Amino acid sequence: MSDEQYMQLALTEASKAEQAGEVPIGCIIVSQGHIVGRGYNLTETLQDVTAHAEIQAITAASQTLGGKYLSDCTLYVTVEPCVMCAGAIGWAQVSRLVYGADDPKRGYTRFAPQALHPKCQVSAGILAESCRQIVQQFFQKKR
Amino acid sequence: MSDEQYMQLALTEASKAEQAGEVPIGCIIVSQGHIVGRGYNLTETLQDVTAHAEIQAITAASQTLGGKYLSDCTLYVTVEPCVMCAGAIGWAQVSRLVYGADDPKRGYTRFAPQALHPKCQVSAGILAESCRQIVQQFFQKKR
Repeated sequence: MSDEQYMQLALTEASKAEQAGEVPIGCIIVSQGHIVGRGYNLTETLQDVTAHAEIQAITAASQTLGGKYLSDCTLYVTVEPCVMCAGAIGWAQVSRLVYGADDPKRGYTRFAPQALHPKCQVSAGILAESCRQIVQQFFQKKR
Repeated sequence: MSDEQYMQLALTEASKAEQAGEVPIGCIIVSQGHIVGRGYNLTETLQDVTAHAEIQAITAASQTLGGKYLSDCTLYVTVEPCVMCAGAIGWAQVSRLVYGADDPKRGYTRFAPQALHPKCQVSAGILAESCRQIVQQFFQKKR
């Protein structure tokens, strides 16, 4: 499967967040062609700021793989990770990060550019327009 | 109670981590004189990099208070938060952060100095020597 196909699955996770009334951001983690973790934003439902899509997917993947290091994994997330999530991605030694839309206000590239593991490869902008639109439409409906 | 007395309670949490074979770091969260959250490092036990003391204490405090913002809370942690935890402390809008020992290798002041909420007040170095020693002794025993 291509990066675009995996990102489409992350968008499916984002849709689940939207249905739960949450800012629609979704994440999947892939190891050797298998999905080992999924997550979507649940900060309102759980009333917990740490319940970002990436944090939940990392916890799930660690559970699936039976270890805390995700060094042969690719993490796909619809929006650029924040500082907290980039820190978690760094601790987990995720070897590749793929994200969709930029987040100039909260994204790690602005606030913590060295948060990831030094060997982590990053691809940005995959299905960026779809990833941006689902968030934008969520906030438009809220107004 | 003074900052030193609260930090002593965070050190008690750190001791629990040590007893579990974990890097001994502990955290408590205080709101209006009441302890509303506690946590200690459990990354090995849970095999989950996100199981830092602060993350667990934030989740606990949110549960106790019934809301995700901890804007009238002080977070005490024995070691300077990492990027991940500083990001979480920022999202939770914690109004005051008190930490013991510096962490020049992984601390947020080096890698993400703007991660906290702009209004968050920070006090560093409270019982720093005790907070540093418990970690140092843990690693000495491991060798």
